[in-house]
Amino acid sequence: MKLNCDLGESFGSWTIEGETEVMPLIDQANVACGFHAGDPVVMAKTLGLAKLNQVEVGAHPGYPDLNGFGRRSMALSENELYQSLHYQISAVAGMASVQGMTISYVKPHGALYNDMMKNDDIRTTIMKAIADYPLPLALMLQANESHSQYAEQARKFDLPLLFEAFADRGYTETGTLVPRSQAGAMLNGAEMLERVKALCEQGVVYAVSGKALSFPVDSLCVHGDNAESVAHIKEIKNLMSHYEN
Amino acid sequence: MKLNCDLGESFGSWTIEGETEVMPLIDQANVACGFHAGDPVVMAKTLGLAKLNQVEVGAHPGYPDLNGFGRRSMALSENELYQSLHYQISAVAGMASVQGMTISYVKPHGALYNDMMKNDDIRTTIMKAIADYPLPLALMLQANESHSQYAEQARKFDLPLLFEAFADRGYTETGTLVPRSQAGAMLNGAEMLERVKALCEQGVVYAVSGKALSFPVDSLCVHGDNAESVAHIKEIKNLMSHYEN
Amino acid sequence: MKLNCDLGESFGSWTIEGETEVMPLIDQANVACGFHAGDPVVMAKTLGLAKLNQVEVGAHPGYPDLNGFGRRSMALSENELYQSLHYQISAVAGMASVQGMTISYVKPHGALYNDMMKNDDIRTTIMKAIADYPLPLALMLQANESHSQYAEQARKFDLPLLFEAFADRGYTETGTLVPRSQAGAMLNGAEMLERVKALCEQGVVYAVSGKALSFPVDSLCVHGDNAESVAHIKEIKNLMSHYEN
Amino acid sequence: MKLNCDLGESFGSWTIEGETEVMPLIDQANVACGFHAGDPVVMAKTLGLAKLNQVEVGAHPGYPDLNGFGRRSMALSENELYQSLHYQISAVAGMASVQGMTISYVKPHGALYNDMMKNDDIRTTIMKAIADYPLPLALMLQANESHSQYAEQARKFDLPLLFEAFADRGYTETGTLVPRSQAGAMLNGAEMLERVKALCEQGVVYAVSGKALSFPVDSLCVHGDNAESVAHIKEIKNLMSHYEN
Repeated sequence: MKLNCDLGESFGSWTIEGETEVMPLIDQANVACGFHAGDPVVMAKTLGLAKLNQVEVGAHPGYPDLNGFGRRSMALSENELYQSLHYQISAVAGMASVQGMTISYVKPHGALYNDMMKNDDIRTTIMKAIADYPLPLALMLQANESHSQYAEQARKFDLPLLFEAFADRGYTETGTLVPRSQAGAMLNGAEMLERVKALCEQGVVYAVSGKALSFPVDSLCVHGDNAESVAHIKEIKNLMSHYEN
Repeated sequence: MKLNCDLGESFGSWTIEGETEVMPLIDQANVACGFHAGDPVVMAKTLGLAKLNQVEVGAHPGYPDLNGFGRRSMALSENELYQSLHYQISAVAGMASVQGMTISYVKPHGALYNDMMKNDDIRTTIMKAIADYPLPLALMLQANESHSQYAEQARKFDLPLLFEAFADRGYTETGTLVPRSQAGAMLNGAEMLERVKALCEQGVVYAVSGKALSFPVDSLCVHGDNAESVAHIKEIKNLMSHYEN
Repeated sequence: MKLNCDLGESFGSWTIEGETEVMPLIDQANVACGFHAGDPVVMAKTLGLAKLNQVEVGAHPGYPDLNGFGRRSMALSENELYQSLHYQISAVAGMASVQGMTISYVKPHGALYNDMMKNDDIRTTIMKAIADYPLPLALMLQANESHSQYAEQARKFDLPLLFEAFADRGYTETGTLVPRSQAGAMLNGAEMLERVKALCEQGVVYAVSGKALSFPVDSLCVHGDNAESVAHIKEIKNLMSHYEN
Repeated sequence: MKLNCDLGESFGSWTIEGETEVMPLIDQANVACGFHAGDPVVMAKTLGLAKLNQVEVGAHPGYPDLNGFGRRSMALSENELYQSLHYQISAVAGMASVQGMTISYVKPHGALYNDMMKNDDIRTTIMKAIADYPLPLALMLQANESHSQYAEQARKFDLPLLFEAFADRGYTETGTLVPRSQAGAMLNGAEMLERVKALCEQGVVYAVSGKALSFPVDSLCVHGDNAESVAHIKEIKNLMSHYEN
């Protein structure tokens, strides 16, 4: 199981700290593409940091909404979504190529990610856009109990999938995330380590109700935008190293 | 001598007409990259039209200023300019690759083009950015009597240059364009044909004063955003065909 | 019954023609506020033209989406919507005040207009935002058979309503507009005059099925972005003058 | 002598902390208008905080450049600058009016501020725009030894001026700020208190060379975007209170 983190989410003078500390701890950096966060200078810096730490790089495209940080669903047409994915993937892929790197996957951001998980048509458009891009790319999406259905959908496009679980979020019994407005939405440090332990030992995620959810997890999504969360990643990393040997 | 035209300059619902008519007449399409004009849907459409007509494609990057159409100079730092060129080149190059095309040159737009011609540091940053991009790309810039100086500057970066002249603009004696606010700035149809004739027969551009300016011209920039200008391109194309045989 | 038209929808170099011709023909100009269309220069020009022609002015706020022209629904939070309405109303109201004018109503644009008609919560937020603004403003919304329900909702905010019908759009039997993708969505010139006649003589709108829809209409929305549509407004204006005397 | 501070400089999810701590300490809040920073939600919050603390409010307009935070000079035409000032002033003035407040001055931001100080034409356009706005507004600009020349220029527009000095920046002998790239650009806490003392006791600002610069100072600009800078404002405030009695 790898660790992935959303990075390159600064914009101009608005800087999100912590990348230098996070990058050495993770395996996969999801790089914002300038539509919901990130800009050319930010992207180049994040890509350079990923290269230095030999971290795999993916495009992290979002809705064109800087003010909403891509967290507000937008009713893009199928073609608008398809082309805006190609634009954003191209931007990251090209800027990575300048530094001698190749991106290997795409993880949609924020509201686009949520819409992809809820809406078959949007997921199809995303799959098609990534499959049509002339680089071998996987789609990273949320692991849940519908995983085999997603895999079947992806097979039609010959598109590899990467399933991710969330280190710091509570799960409902149906495998969705507990909304941030509700109790149990966010895990504390100890709970995150329990999550990792359950994944490494039993291959399950426990819902807040206690129900065990079973699905494949290729990567664990962590957050690292403050000192506390960086410390949590270190603990997760340490714990995971026990299971890797 | 080739014909080049700035295309893909629509934005969302704001459509600039004429691309379908212009594309079959030109050799090189300069495709806007979304910073001063163009958006993912527009870019995909323009690139598709270029492919259909076997037209060579170049990136046409500009300052990040949609409201000013990239015509207002902006004091970007060297790194901001460098990275924003890579971002824009990447966007067009990647979207072209989806359609099986490869871009072959970069022509800066509007105020960035003018700043490049006037300012050594900006021209150096542009040359370096294009040379560092991992595709074989030429820089298209304005032909004038300093051409050998530009060529020498470009050799340091091992960067090919494409010199362009303008079909529809008046020239001063020093080889700059007559400002749009002054008499003689814009050529009419007959004057454009004289321009083409002088270039094809004598290899010179006549300034408004009558002085003959001599410099290499690889490509002639034409405009095609209304019916009249499309008709002019047809006449230019016809005239040029007499010299090609 | 007044005539209203969406104006000030140019943006930078992308110009929508026809304002000079339309303005003398209408009673109410809905001025875009810079979020989906319009910019400071465009707004000042449109407001000046309205002043010259003694046309009433309203704010025409939309979702913050220039690339989508405000036609893509966006999931703004209640507070984001409320404040972005105040921002946009303020911009138009203040720029109108520079020219000695006072805006008198607000008509939401595009997807925001549609969301307002379909969604009680969004309509409530819009009503509250307009009522809280310290100018006496009415809300312009679509006339349909739920009008008394809207009026009741508006009374809680002490907010005057202006009901508009569309001159050039087909209606379904439930009083909604026929989607642009379906037959009967757009009326031709003769049908528009029939629409006006039915409104002036019988106070009804005929649905495409022939059913007569009865509701109050304070203003008729016309479009004038090309020569043909301007000609239609002139015919509508002529026809209406017969009923005004 | 009053204290002023640039506030409302968050944007969407990118939050600049410290406003709650700073607002009770200052007399004048310069509120960003959405062009270089700020958005409707941010503006409403900052204005509400100013109201709560009975702080005077001014518009803080900038160039339309979120990515550059308004720190990159942009070649706007005179009319573009004029109208964009009206738009931004309107936005803040209107949103302030919703909370029962009236703005009383305008302080340009970043590159626009610097361009105003260096360029007569830009300063004239700014003065004209503020004078033409139908609210009694002053222009806040940098105090230096050309102050009487600025005052004369402003008298033509019947425009009141507010001269500000900087609490935390080094001055050259000609009264300009030492560039951030040079030694002496930023003052430490002790130096700031010396600056305040010199202003309160002698009415002068000492340049880094030791030369005393004499000019009227209506307001002292402080910064408060981190805990240390907030502590400095408290010390400045304490020191100033000794001179007020």
